[in-house]
Amino acid sequence: MALYVHKYGGTSVGSAERIKAVAERVARFRREGHEVVVVVSAMSGETNRLTSLAQELADKPRPKELDVLLASGEQVTIALLSMAIHELGLDARSFLGSQVRIVTDSQHSKARIEHIEESALRSALAAGQVPVVAGFQGVTEDGEVTTFGRGGSDTTAVALAATLGVEECQIYTDVDGVYTTDPRIVQDARRLETVTFEEMLELASLGSKVLHPRSVEFAGKYNVALRVLSSFEDGPGTLITTEETVMEQPIVSGIAHTRDEAKLTVQGVPDIPGIASKILGPIGRANIEVDMIVQNIGADGLTDFTFTVSRSDFAQALALLEPIREATGAREVVSDDAIAKVSVVGVGMRSHAGVATQMFDALAAENINIQIISTSEIKISVVVAERYLELAVRAIHSAFGLENGPASSLS
Amino acid sequence: MALYVHKYGGTSVGSAERIKAVAERVARFRREGHEVVVVVSAMSGETNRLTSLAQELADKPRPKELDVLLASGEQVTIALLSMAIHELGLDARSFLGSQVRIVTDSQHSKARIEHIEESALRSALAAGQVPVVAGFQGVTEDGEVTTFGRGGSDTTAVALAATLGVEECQIYTDVDGVYTTDPRIVQDARRLETVTFEEMLELASLGSKVLHPRSVEFAGKYNVALRVLSSFEDGPGTLITTEETVMEQPIVSGIAHTRDEAKLTVQGVPDIPGIASKILGPIGRANIEVDMIVQNIGADGLTDFTFTVSRSDFAQALALLEPIREATGAREVVSDDAIAKVSVVGVGMRSHAGVATQMFDALAAENINIQIISTSEIKISVVVAERYLELAVRAIHSAFGLENGPASSLS
Repeated sequence: MALYVHKYGGTSVGSAERIKAVAERVARFRREGHEVVVVVSAMSGETNRLTSLAQELADKPRPKELDVLLASGEQVTIALLSMAIHELGLDARSFLGSQVRIVTDSQHSKARIEHIEESALRSALAAGQVPVVAGFQGVTEDGEVTTFGRGGSDTTAVALAATLGVEECQIYTDVDGVYTTDPRIVQDARRLETVTFEEMLELASLGSKVLHPRSVEFAGKYNVALRVLSSFEDGPGTLITTEETVMEQPIVSGIAHTRDEAKLTVQGVPDIPGIASKILGPIGRANIEVDMIVQNIGADGLTDFTFTVSRSDFAQALALLEPIREATGAREVVSDDAIAKVSVVGVGMRSHAGVATQMFDALAAENINIQIISTSEIKISVVVAERYLELAVRAIHSAFGLENGPASSLS
Repeated sequence: MALYVHKYGGTSVGSAERIKAVAERVARFRREGHEVVVVVSAMSGETNRLTSLAQELADKPRPKELDVLLASGEQVTIALLSMAIHELGLDARSFLGSQVRIVTDSQHSKARIEHIEESALRSALAAGQVPVVAGFQGVTEDGEVTTFGRGGSDTTAVALAATLGVEECQIYTDVDGVYTTDPRIVQDARRLETVTFEEMLELASLGSKVLHPRSVEFAGKYNVALRVLSSFEDGPGTLITTEETVMEQPIVSGIAHTRDEAKLTVQGVPDIPGIASKILGPIGRANIEVDMIVQNIGADGLTDFTFTVSRSDFAQALALLEPIREATGAREVVSDDAIAKVSVVGVGMRSHAGVATQMFDALAAENINIQIISTSEIKISVVVAERYLELAVRAIHSAFGLENGPASSLS
């Protein structure tokens, strides 16, 4: 009997009806002869409901108490799913983070897992039970409840999979896999059979929200075979795997995009050593994450310095820049939050030249102006005006023939 | 600094607004120089919401998982109230049952407290914190979540009060104290300054739902001074106390009533030894609780045997009686679930004759027929047709002059 971890997100357990469907899927899986540990999120809407309650009571709710509050969401789901599995004639048992003993540090609301005790889960499995584990939550050595922040249930699933050494960690969601790009933008976007951890990381961090980057990173590090599947229909989903296991790598696997950025440019900065840290130092100290950074070569010993931040940090970053402009004697700060970032991702790029040219040609053919370019080993990102987002994604998707199957045929 | 336990029920913490009001009350209490441990219930409606979800998934949800489910309700409240208290500049800290270590047996959904560890709460108090404890829940030695059943949060409050040796255990509710009778029936019902544990027990078990009998019993046993107050307005409430501490006992303290009973009579039973256990044996084995039992002296060696059960058990009890009737050769089973029980309660009755007569006279004056009578040291109960309930309560309340102040003036 092979052991699997199943993880069901908020939408998959969003109502009694859906919890029943999950119970049936788990029961079928067991009857096929597999062992399974199930990880669940809070019912969809629940975390928002609880967060709103907290915000009615405090502008900045204490993270410690917010963790106690939010952890109740997964507690509800594990109890309900255990009951539902039991109704189908299987023995199930719920586990809070503290009952498994998923031990974390004490950084409330963004705790990191320190270790996971196997014994309680192993005993349950040995007794023929289906352990149903609350995702997103752990406990400190002192017995305080902690949570893992965004994508926390995925993190729980992958961490359990790594600890237990499972066959596969299956993440059930409301989509049936990872696509070459957003199907809402490109009608003939295609589901990928496999994608590498590195590609998945780029896709996830670039706005393809199937999996949280942290859990992908974790899975890559501990070599956990991760599969994304639909909890609503049957199908093979997408296997996220290491590069070596895939016979032939496509040049480009997918096109990611995000609207969640804003652009800030300090114009006419003296082009002297240390100027980048003078500008970005205060931004970093304010805990604002900077994504792309571009410094143009300027004339007259002056340069333009551009970077992007998350839109939610835009106003704060802009306010921080004014004193910096004065201090550095820069000419002007210009900003734009109506931008979008579009990226092509693929491990095959490493050994193939010409991908960037092909991408830029596709944009030029549509008269789309590129504002910023940034590249890494397995991705090329451009910033364009937000109104061109859909057009840009469609043009690039088509240029690489992604609708026709693996783009490795282009090599 | 004297230490108090405050307990706030579901209505008192039913919204963010009300939780804020509770936080303000707690903060004021602290500023007046008292120490306090707060116990809270789930927000009103929450337990029903969770129970309904469970019932959508299983006809008989597993008690073990139902406990995990329901315990989440109090978890939400402790987190929210702790945040709200913190907003007022005080340090508060939430405690789950498992974090206090309220250790119980493993009878899920009706667990009994075995012991409570003081150290975590004492440390919090010593650090100047307000401990906010989840009512209704505990943990087994094996770390399983348990709940205490109906009135469970009152039980938590009283048990903590007993363990910590507090000045007073204050139960904040949506009424401002214990009344001589239901003010919805008798307009000039009066709030009692004090009531004894025994009277409170009779009043509670007879349908005055201010406090659950179990918590009153517990408070009496451990000599915890218990006070019922309103969480919506200021006032002295009602102190529940031992008989000795009250100077002069009124004859009658209050009039209780309940509609929650049904009457069953087996007519024409052979009047032989052992007949009572032949009839009630199967009822008891079906876990149906019997309240009043009356056996009339009959003629011709036959007798009529009457008892009352909770209305929810009525149909089942009736079904069980038919084979008993056959086996005993009794003539007929007659039943009635349109009955009401009205009781006068007062420790002063012990030393005063004539209370029963006064009560029966009051009913006779209104032409109300008495179907069953049952008496104990401190109460007299009668069963009447349900349609006479309000009239009976008003007649008796007035006969004992309860609207005018302690009825001891009648002695």
